[in-house]
Amino acid sequence: MVVTDPDVLGGYRQDRALDPDAGIALALVRPLTTEQVATTVRWAHEHRVPIVPRGAGTGLSGGATAQNGALLLSTEKMRDISVDTVTRTAIVQPGLLNAEVKRAVAEHGLWYPPDPSSFEICSIGGNAATNAGGLCCVKYGVTTDYVLGMEVVLADGTAVRLGGPRLKDSAGLSLTKLFVGSEGTLGIITELTLRLLPAQPPQSTVVATFPTLTAATDAILAITGQLRPSMLEFMDSVAINAVEDELRMGLDRQAAGLLVARSDAPGEHAGHEADIMLAACEKAGATEAFRTDDPDEGEAFCAARRFAIPAVERKGPLLLEDVGVPLPRLGDLVTGIADIAANRRVLISVIAHAGDGNTHPLIVHDPSDPEESERAHLAFGEIMDLAIGLGGTITGEHGVGRLKKPWLPDQLGPDVMALTRRIKDALDPHGILNPGAVL
Amino acid sequence: MVVTDPDVLGGYRQDRALDPDAGIALALVRPLTTEQVATTVRWAHEHRVPIVPRGAGTGLSGGATAQNGALLLSTEKMRDISVDTVTRTAIVQPGLLNAEVKRAVAEHGLWYPPDPSSFEICSIGGNAATNAGGLCCVKYGVTTDYVLGMEVVLADGTAVRLGGPRLKDSAGLSLTKLFVGSEGTLGIITELTLRLLPAQPPQSTVVATFPTLTAATDAILAITGQLRPSMLEFMDSVAINAVEDELRMGLDRQAAGLLVARSDAPGEHAGHEADIMLAACEKAGATEAFRTDDPDEGEAFCAARRFAIPAVERKGPLLLEDVGVPLPRLGDLVTGIADIAANRRVLISVIAHAGDGNTHPLIVHDPSDPEESERAHLAFGEIMDLAIGLGGTITGEHGVGRLKKPWLPDQLGPDVMALTRRIKDALDPHGILNPGAVL
Repeated sequence: MVVTDPDVLGGYRQDRALDPDAGIALALVRPLTTEQVATTVRWAHEHRVPIVPRGAGTGLSGGATAQNGALLLSTEKMRDISVDTVTRTAIVQPGLLNAEVKRAVAEHGLWYPPDPSSFEICSIGGNAATNAGGLCCVKYGVTTDYVLGMEVVLADGTAVRLGGPRLKDSAGLSLTKLFVGSEGTLGIITELTLRLLPAQPPQSTVVATFPTLTAATDAILAITGQLRPSMLEFMDSVAINAVEDELRMGLDRQAAGLLVARSDAPGEHAGHEADIMLAACEKAGATEAFRTDDPDEGEAFCAARRFAIPAVERKGPLLLEDVGVPLPRLGDLVTGIADIAANRRVLISVIAHAGDGNTHPLIVHDPSDPEESERAHLAFGEIMDLAIGLGGTITGEHGVGRLKKPWLPDQLGPDVMALTRRIKDALDPHGILNPGAVL
Repeated sequence: MVVTDPDVLGGYRQDRALDPDAGIALALVRPLTTEQVATTVRWAHEHRVPIVPRGAGTGLSGGATAQNGALLLSTEKMRDISVDTVTRTAIVQPGLLNAEVKRAVAEHGLWYPPDPSSFEICSIGGNAATNAGGLCCVKYGVTTDYVLGMEVVLADGTAVRLGGPRLKDSAGLSLTKLFVGSEGTLGIITELTLRLLPAQPPQSTVVATFPTLTAATDAILAITGQLRPSMLEFMDSVAINAVEDELRMGLDRQAAGLLVARSDAPGEHAGHEADIMLAACEKAGATEAFRTDDPDEGEAFCAARRFAIPAVERKGPLLLEDVGVPLPRLGDLVTGIADIAANRRVLISVIAHAGDGNTHPLIVHDPSDPEESERAHLAFGEIMDLAIGLGGTITGEHGVGRLKKPWLPDQLGPDVMALTRRIKDALDPHGILNPGAVL
């Protein structure tokens, strides 16, 4: 169970944030059961050895960066799932991938909504640890909205069971919800009870291109002011062209922005809602806008949107942001990011889960060019400052990890930081759980 | 601002749980602003005076019972609300009633879903403090699902702002969700940012009566196995007759149980779903079952269901339970309650938010008859023991308060109780916030 081979450990040093400050871990453990996790944590607690938990290692904030002398605890081998169609819940171990959860419940005609773009490669445990979001969250909410219960191993190795397959439970503090999004700093989630929905109805899809960013953000506000789309995604010109370079699907390379909007209202209501969204796009000045009810065609545009990050990444390594703002400030955010890109002379592509105000500015930079890299990192911080100034958040769905930690006090303020620290100290008094992350 | 008149204080000694152990408070404060709450708590913190916070005083678990020498802090005068149609959120002060929130947002074509039966008289702050539920929760979730942010005054009088009008926010711990359902033991909520939905579509309603409890629970499982109703409510024979005594609406007095089920699917899909539910009721052996799309008629049956508690209360004072179980165990719970009623020779009426497994057994007893009262209280505890044994909860939506506190360790176990205590001690080291509630 314990691996100390440096070659193997090397593969677990970083997550997808590629934190340059990753350390050298003591060893790697890949437990199969809650009891094995508990045994590991009891040992670590006794010897005051820090533990860095990780799921599939797809995190984008350095939440799973190896620390010197730490134990890496990967949940990748914890892969059981059972589905209960009557309570419409699934009990899953954390190592299962999001897509595997979706597929397993789909066999029972059920649906687990949260859908990070990385859903084929990210783990459900990591999703819970970061309170991950995705594309359908604009209508269906984020991971915490689907976690009814969990088993979690605390800092001293005690395994506790919280919540359960019940939609309602007001007995005691909402501890389940506290552990969701805690990024491995309060405990290690070893099992989740997930709320499921009936299978999603077929979706109707609208694709529209816009001559200006303002026209696109106008369309976004017009749409969300009238209905709740099941998806409302945005790509800017850089992303459109990067995707078109790879996929050759005939996207308008001249457009300043592209929206993909969907409705999953029952039956012909999906088409009605799509028509309302189409009209909103046209009224906002779309150069082209069309609706399709063909599932494959609709999915192709969603896949194009999901492919935007890897496509832009071919232009160079990315600093990946995850800033969110209240929706009325989305235009200010997008404009402000363009100003930062111009001032810092760096290429920044903006893609967004537009309907909930959550954007992913992608800062392209050459890490081997120290001067350019410095400008990129300055822009990285300035974008978070901008989001905070607009009443937003430095992370909508990726978590703080280690890369965004310096900006967290600016968002939360000293009193909330102190409150956070009190909870952390109460639950992990020796600071062995994911040290250096978040706090 | 500070009231010490014993007559006034007397009106604030208890909530609707009528806790016989209520004490004599020092004084009552009714602040208007967060700053006034903070000033009050700073004073209390400095002088180590306990504070019992309360909303509208409609709690059913004794969460707002006055304690000897404590300060009562009522949020009833904090009644501001502002609605933002673009972010689809409302910022509300805690003293506003749930119904007032619903009405204020409805003026903007929006909907705040959580709907405790007491929605006309309970406060939104109390709803957040207990993580209140209601009738539509089977489809739309509970209060925590709608709280995106809050302002809360901590035990030392510091006011902090958590979350905000953003659907996604992974920055730091999920503190907002921790304070929801904390029953005033961790802080005093002075403002809430609530997520809203577009106005609910018209509902189609099914009413069905059953010759046996088993037939009724069979129908419940058959319905929830096929779709998500927007309401699925149950009344037993005692409740049916109590309601019929008062309302004379022609309910079948011979029935063992009555279901009210609704669908709010768009357009004619509500009717389609209602027909599926109707067929499920008939197949399960309903003696009578019909569908109505008339909003007034549908609302009349919902109102009848909401009226069940006051109607049964006319038979005598109630011990009001709030136990919930995973849905497949609902039949076992209902049968087991009947056994307890027979064994203890007390009248117990069961009404339920059946679709989410949350039941309200109503134990009728005469408090002036010590022997009967003792049997009633024994039944009260046995019902919670039964729910725990079935993998359920002692409270689905009312909170633990003081009346259910002895059973909380049985549900949570010693490790979760210790975890809860660590958080309580970290946030309220001097134990001045709602002492004696929950813990």
